[in-house]
Amino acid sequence: MKLNCDLGESYGAWSMPVETEIMVYIDQANIACGFHAGDPVTLKRAIALALEHDVAIGAHPSYPDLQGFGRRSMSMKPEELKACLHYQIAALAGLAKMQGGAVSYVKPHGALYNDLMQDVNLRKTVMQAIYEAGDGELSLMIQAHPDHAALMAQAKDIGINLIFEAFADRRYTDEGYLVSRHRDGAVLSDDEALTQAERFMDKQEVVTESGAIIPIAADSLCVHGDSPGAVDMARKIRLALTHRKLGAKYSYGHEK
Amino acid sequence: MKLNCDLGESYGAWSMPVETEIMVYIDQANIACGFHAGDPVTLKRAIALALEHDVAIGAHPSYPDLQGFGRRSMSMKPEELKACLHYQIAALAGLAKMQGGAVSYVKPHGALYNDLMQDVNLRKTVMQAIYEAGDGELSLMIQAHPDHAALMAQAKDIGINLIFEAFADRRYTDEGYLVSRHRDGAVLSDDEALTQAERFMDKQEVVTESGAIIPIAADSLCVHGDSPGAVDMARKIRLALTHRKLGAKYSYGHEK
Amino acid sequence: MKLNCDLGESYGAWSMPVETEIMVYIDQANIACGFHAGDPVTLKRAIALALEHDVAIGAHPSYPDLQGFGRRSMSMKPEELKACLHYQIAALAGLAKMQGGAVSYVKPHGALYNDLMQDVNLRKTVMQAIYEAGDGELSLMIQAHPDHAALMAQAKDIGINLIFEAFADRRYTDEGYLVSRHRDGAVLSDDEALTQAERFMDKQEVVTESGAIIPIAADSLCVHGDSPGAVDMARKIRLALTHRKLGAKYSYGHEK
Amino acid sequence: MKLNCDLGESYGAWSMPVETEIMVYIDQANIACGFHAGDPVTLKRAIALALEHDVAIGAHPSYPDLQGFGRRSMSMKPEELKACLHYQIAALAGLAKMQGGAVSYVKPHGALYNDLMQDVNLRKTVMQAIYEAGDGELSLMIQAHPDHAALMAQAKDIGINLIFEAFADRRYTDEGYLVSRHRDGAVLSDDEALTQAERFMDKQEVVTESGAIIPIAADSLCVHGDSPGAVDMARKIRLALTHRKLGAKYSYGHEK
Repeated sequence: MKLNCDLGESYGAWSMPVETEIMVYIDQANIACGFHAGDPVTLKRAIALALEHDVAIGAHPSYPDLQGFGRRSMSMKPEELKACLHYQIAALAGLAKMQGGAVSYVKPHGALYNDLMQDVNLRKTVMQAIYEAGDGELSLMIQAHPDHAALMAQAKDIGINLIFEAFADRRYTDEGYLVSRHRDGAVLSDDEALTQAERFMDKQEVVTESGAIIPIAADSLCVHGDSPGAVDMARKIRLALTHRKLGAKYSYGHEK
Repeated sequence: MKLNCDLGESYGAWSMPVETEIMVYIDQANIACGFHAGDPVTLKRAIALALEHDVAIGAHPSYPDLQGFGRRSMSMKPEELKACLHYQIAALAGLAKMQGGAVSYVKPHGALYNDLMQDVNLRKTVMQAIYEAGDGELSLMIQAHPDHAALMAQAKDIGINLIFEAFADRRYTDEGYLVSRHRDGAVLSDDEALTQAERFMDKQEVVTESGAIIPIAADSLCVHGDSPGAVDMARKIRLALTHRKLGAKYSYGHEK
Repeated sequence: MKLNCDLGESYGAWSMPVETEIMVYIDQANIACGFHAGDPVTLKRAIALALEHDVAIGAHPSYPDLQGFGRRSMSMKPEELKACLHYQIAALAGLAKMQGGAVSYVKPHGALYNDLMQDVNLRKTVMQAIYEAGDGELSLMIQAHPDHAALMAQAKDIGINLIFEAFADRRYTDEGYLVSRHRDGAVLSDDEALTQAERFMDKQEVVTESGAIIPIAADSLCVHGDSPGAVDMARKIRLALTHRKLGAKYSYGHEK
Repeated sequence: MKLNCDLGESYGAWSMPVETEIMVYIDQANIACGFHAGDPVTLKRAIALALEHDVAIGAHPSYPDLQGFGRRSMSMKPEELKACLHYQIAALAGLAKMQGGAVSYVKPHGALYNDLMQDVNLRKTVMQAIYEAGDGELSLMIQAHPDHAALMAQAKDIGINLIFEAFADRRYTDEGYLVSRHRDGAVLSDDEALTQAERFMDKQEVVTESGAIIPIAADSLCVHGDSPGAVDMARKIRLALTHRKLGAKYSYGHEK
């Protein structure tokens, strides 16, 4: 299992700060592409940061909506949406190449991310766009969900790989989606989040808001880096991951 | 000598139409990159049109100014301008690659084009940006000018090639720049334009507004394709070029 | 019955031309506000044109989407949408005031116009926004529809007046909406359009795509001014209206 | 003398936070208008905050440049610039009116503010725009400068009033401009800033970077509210002002 984090979401004079320290804890950086966030200078800086830390670079494209930070659904024709995704992926991939790097996957942002989980046709459009953009070499990062098999089948049909991600600090519904941020208890406490992260790692499952247990098979956990507290949580999840990989035999001392 | 034309300058519902017929007459398409014009669907269409006609693709980046169509000078810091150029070139190059094509040169648009002819430091920034974007493989298309040698020396220093272009239908000042569009007589009649184009071809020189003759060594002539009249002018310039290349011996009939 | 037309939809170097001649035939100008179209210079010019011809000025606000020309639905929170409407109405009303004019009504544009016909909660948000913007003095121009009474009741509740408009050149569904532009026969021929316009005037009804007759009580007809043909249609509709108002007794000659 | 502060400079998900506490210390709020910052929700909130605290509202318009936060000079034609100013002033004034308030002055933002101090023709365009927007009722807030008389004469000619502002925490050049932020010592320490503020109040003069003393007659001091430290400085300047107005006789205790 890997850790991923959203980066490059500042714009001009406005910053959406991510603590640089997060970089040592993550494996995958989802970098904005300019349509919901990310002026060109910000994108170049985010790419440099990722390359410096040997972190994989993912394009994090969005509906074209700076004012709404890509959080508002937009009804776009398939050809429009594809072209918007192609443009954004092209821009980020080209910037990465100029620094000697490469984009290896695409994680749609915000409303687009949520919409494609619900709408099979929209998902098809996004998958096709990613296939076309990368000739099959680009993966799609998407939310891990009990209906794993259907998502896999659709991706296989189109010819792309999926990276399934889960959210340590968000409460899940019985259907395997995230409880809306507008509802109480949607965001977990640090202790709960760590417990949930470990459950993803150990059992590929989650305890939902009703107390039910449902399967969630994730390849990656999404973490935040926008405050010292968030970085500390990432550190703890990273350690939990490392312990699982290496076990006790490589332990050389006491870890709190 | 080649012919080039600006393409891809529509945006969403607004069109900046170019007659498709222009494609058979040109060698180089300068395609907008989204900052002064060119929504993603428009750019993909322009690239497809260029590839269909075996026309070389150039990126036509701009200051970030949709409302002003890139025609207003902006005071950007070198790092800001470089990042804006890198982003635009990356986007267009990536879109071209997705269609099996490639960007081979960069022609700055509008105010940026004019500004870099006047400001040696700005020109250096643009040249460096192009060098960095293409690892020395991208050329810069720039205005042919009597002070050819200085432009060449600066480009050589930085490590890029130049493509010099001239304008058939615009009057020149004695200093070798274009007479401002706001002045009377700035735009030539069709007959004058053809004469001026032929003079560029035959003698690498131009007759200025004062009647003086100055040297202008151009690799490419910029033509327009936004009306049937403009396309007809491009056709005539193309024929004039062909006659010069092939001469009378390959002629098989009468050309008006 | 009155005639209305959309104006002010150019943006910077891109034009969405409306023949000036249309102004003598219309009573109400729906002027863009900058969010789907209309740079500031364009808006000032459109206002001047309306004032010169004694045409009532309506604000024509949109979802914030220049790239999509306001034709894509966006999921905005009520407070966001209200603020966007308030800003656009304020801008246009202020520009009108600087020229000695005033905005008297609001006609939502594009996707927002269509969405509010279908979604009673969205319609409530828009109606409240207009009430708040004008202290009850601004009317809402909305599509005339068989369910006239429900629309009236909702508007009365909130405290605004409605102006119902109908479309001469568009085919209607049996439910009283417009047949989608993407379907064959959605746009009427000139002769059909004139006939449909006269039916709106004489009988407050329309013949739908199935041949059914449904009631459509319109206060205003929407006409186009983007081509000489469109202007000619507006002229014919204007004459048809005038004849109905004045009758034969004021006739002084032959009208073709 | 009054205190003013820039407000409303967030945009969508990005915030440019101002401590609400600053409101009790200031007299004039310069509120962004959407072209360099300020989405519609942010503007409405800033206006509400100003009205709640009985703070005068000024429009703070900018060159149209969100990505550059209005900090990059743009070469706009007079009619373009006027239209951009009219649109922004109209939007803010209308939003204020919807809440029962009014805009009483205009303070240009960023690069436009600096440019008009240096360019007499640009200043004329801005002054005319403000005159036209407010029928002579809107004042222009501009930087206090030794060449007071020339600025006053130009404004009188055009028919508007000026509000001169000075900067407590910025070092001045011998010519009466601000030392560029890029140079060392451009920003004063808190103690120095308070001393400079008191000197503006008591002697209408400033000690420049060379140690010279030059006259600066200010009507208002610009303060910041973006951190608890900035608010504390505003509090001290406010107290210094109050003491000067009321003197010792109204004092009822000890002030640290």
